[in-house]
Amino acid sequence: MNTVELIKKKRDGKSFTANEINFLINHYTKGNIPDYQFSALLMAILLNDMNADETAALTNSMLNSGKIINHSSLRGFKVDKHSTGGVGDKTSLIIAPIVASAGIYIPMISGRGLGHTGGTLDKLESIPGFRTDLSLSESMRILKKCGAVLIGQTNEIAPADKLIYALRDVTATIESIPLITASIMSKKLAEGIDGLVLDIKTGNGAFMKSQKDSIRLAESLIRTARSFNKKVIVFITDMNQPSGNYIGNWLEVYESVQVLKGKVKNDLYYLSVKLAGTMIYLSKKAKSLQEGEQIAREKVKDGDAFKKFLEIVKLQGGNEHYIINPEKYPKPKYIKKIKSSRSGYIENIDTQNIGMASLELGAGRRTKEDKIDPKAGIIFYYKIRDFVKKGEVICELQSDSRAKIKLAEEIIHKSLNLSNRKPASPKLVKKIII
Amino acid sequence: MNTVELIKKKRDGKSFTANEINFLINHYTKGNIPDYQFSALLMAILLNDMNADETAALTNSMLNSGKIINHSSLRGFKVDKHSTGGVGDKTSLIIAPIVASAGIYIPMISGRGLGHTGGTLDKLESIPGFRTDLSLSESMRILKKCGAVLIGQTNEIAPADKLIYALRDVTATIESIPLITASIMSKKLAEGIDGLVLDIKTGNGAFMKSQKDSIRLAESLIRTARSFNKKVIVFITDMNQPSGNYIGNWLEVYESVQVLKGKVKNDLYYLSVKLAGTMIYLSKKAKSLQEGEQIAREKVKDGDAFKKFLEIVKLQGGNEHYIINPEKYPKPKYIKKIKSSRSGYIENIDTQNIGMASLELGAGRRTKEDKIDPKAGIIFYYKIRDFVKKGEVICELQSDSRAKIKLAEEIIHKSLNLSNRKPASPKLVKKIII
Repeated sequence: MNTVELIKKKRDGKSFTANEINFLINHYTKGNIPDYQFSALLMAILLNDMNADETAALTNSMLNSGKIINHSSLRGFKVDKHSTGGVGDKTSLIIAPIVASAGIYIPMISGRGLGHTGGTLDKLESIPGFRTDLSLSESMRILKKCGAVLIGQTNEIAPADKLIYALRDVTATIESIPLITASIMSKKLAEGIDGLVLDIKTGNGAFMKSQKDSIRLAESLIRTARSFNKKVIVFITDMNQPSGNYIGNWLEVYESVQVLKGKVKNDLYYLSVKLAGTMIYLSKKAKSLQEGEQIAREKVKDGDAFKKFLEIVKLQGGNEHYIINPEKYPKPKYIKKIKSSRSGYIENIDTQNIGMASLELGAGRRTKEDKIDPKAGIIFYYKIRDFVKKGEVICELQSDSRAKIKLAEEIIHKSLNLSNRKPASPKLVKKIII
Repeated sequence: MNTVELIKKKRDGKSFTANEINFLINHYTKGNIPDYQFSALLMAILLNDMNADETAALTNSMLNSGKIINHSSLRGFKVDKHSTGGVGDKTSLIIAPIVASAGIYIPMISGRGLGHTGGTLDKLESIPGFRTDLSLSESMRILKKCGAVLIGQTNEIAPADKLIYALRDVTATIESIPLITASIMSKKLAEGIDGLVLDIKTGNGAFMKSQKDSIRLAESLIRTARSFNKKVIVFITDMNQPSGNYIGNWLEVYESVQVLKGKVKNDLYYLSVKLAGTMIYLSKKAKSLQEGEQIAREKVKDGDAFKKFLEIVKLQGGNEHYIINPEKYPKPKYIKKIKSSRSGYIENIDTQNIGMASLELGAGRRTKEDKIDPKAGIIFYYKIRDFVKKGEVICELQSDSRAKIKLAEEIIHKSLNLSNRKPASPKLVKKIII
């Protein structure tokens, strides 16, 4: 096979065979196909698309570029959740202990934040001592012991995806349904799971801005998961405002703990028990989604979920002291309260900009090399449809740098719209695709 | 400006400003934009196209990446011809002396052969001693002295095109009308010419297989040339059989000499005097295309064109002895006569394959690094519509290697179709666009 001829084939709108896809992925991963050829191929794929068979073959090639974890020694259902990412999206921290406390294994491989979105690994690492870089044998020991483990993508898991994602990031080839599908599914399938719940965030703070694209992605993910005989349910959820009220790494751990303790019953709680309940349903520990959700609510109510979270933190080396007494956590040097310049209903929020403001404060990364400040972030006191009086504090900005607070403040002011009329409430769960 | 955002723009089907194109070309030429980003951009351009303004801006950026030769010290019209390439296409060797002998300057920058097509430089260099790597000052001296000079693209001429062409070649991004237009025009405009005649080869031995694509390319080239205030006329000519009867470097010089001496009046002669006549017309030395062609025919007839060719060969260091006595030229070790296995009219010729057979014999290059054998090649005794009797010699294969002859023979047998019915004659000049 000849690389240029294969690029030509996709360029001319034709479909690849599984053998051709294997050739391309294997030789790119081995370094036999240079980046400049692979990026031309990626652009041709983005513009001319791939069909379901090609997407499954691509997922399979990327999956088999690395190790597939074998959990067959663990008796019981293994399930994971994947979110396409948004602002303040911290459901993983809440779901993992709920699901594990319900007696289901949850071997979760997560990522880091980049751009306007945060990453589960960064949030967990804001807990002093918490280690996400466990070896596979360490993580399997913890999974066996407590039912959940939250780690990062090792070099052994889908190395082709790591290479291809890095190239897509710098060649404007992220936004392709088949490429997104193969990237997500190759990593998730490598976890050795039996089922998967997917949360496709949609709106002005998500990668998928339109519901139409989200549904296309959902269908592609479902088709691909089923071609590997995995149970899958997809949620399409709203990302036109931050999830919950806290944005920033430690701040999000803090809010997750409040939810796990049953102290907060906001949109974040509602979505977390829905997703966790769906995972419980997939494992057949519940006969319906409703029953699954009920179990999840109970696990929060009776304190099991919070206890499980403490257990995970301890087993992964984290200092549970800060989880029990979060007020002891180091404070940022500066806290700036942002007051409303007028009265009105919060009508819309430029959520991606809010994510960028949080990045400016030190909570995020512009490039992979940037360091993050675990204390930095934003607390929002209101959600869309809430009424704010002139002079009331809308949100708090936290950072060690006054200059950064100033930058973030400018962004925040441009990102909130108040209206005299009460707007419709955005629907949190837009669609569940079973 | 941000490279990824610019790639996104073209990916999403939007148009670039001239500033954006300058940014991309300048930074790529300087090495600030890596190949893997530029190749994704090239694929996006190929698939989403560029409009006339973008194509002109791209040509301008590529032109200005290098030196633009100033011939203002030469009084008189400067004209060139460019062909998109085909099999046996040797008109440059015939046109340059005809046009120069008519008192018009022809500063010709040519290329080398790659794949199934030959290159003017390789053909000229089959003449012992002939130098195509002249410095700009040497070539200007020769141009001034004899009216014509035939050289290769130096590093000073459109370096952006050199870089981009090399990348297009390995990323399946050759076949884009705006990219082809900018590549041709940036080099031709750098020659400091006043007018240009373009010969777009169309058919199974050309890069453009369909007349529709050829007309699109013609229109793009004309629009771009005129946006630089250059006179231009485009020919769309047939490439469904080799041009003339000889393929291979020295063999093509030999055939050109026969045409220049007035000894051969075949399709090659006919096309050469048409193209040369058009250049003479553009220079206003003739009032019509017909009158231009008449002058070209006379220049051949009265021996001026052949004398001019000898002068060019001598000035560029070539041994004119071989032009005067071509029978003294070294002979290939093996000559294989291919006989027809049946009687019939030649109905069609897979011309690209004939080019590949010539390459196999040693006359061409598979990669830029391959060495060519100037003696190797093919002599065809028939053209489409000719009747061949069973057992008659259709063509001769010449090479220093028996194994290569065997390979080429196999290709030749698969590339010729004979029919019992006399086919229509392919029209040599399909269209002239003024």
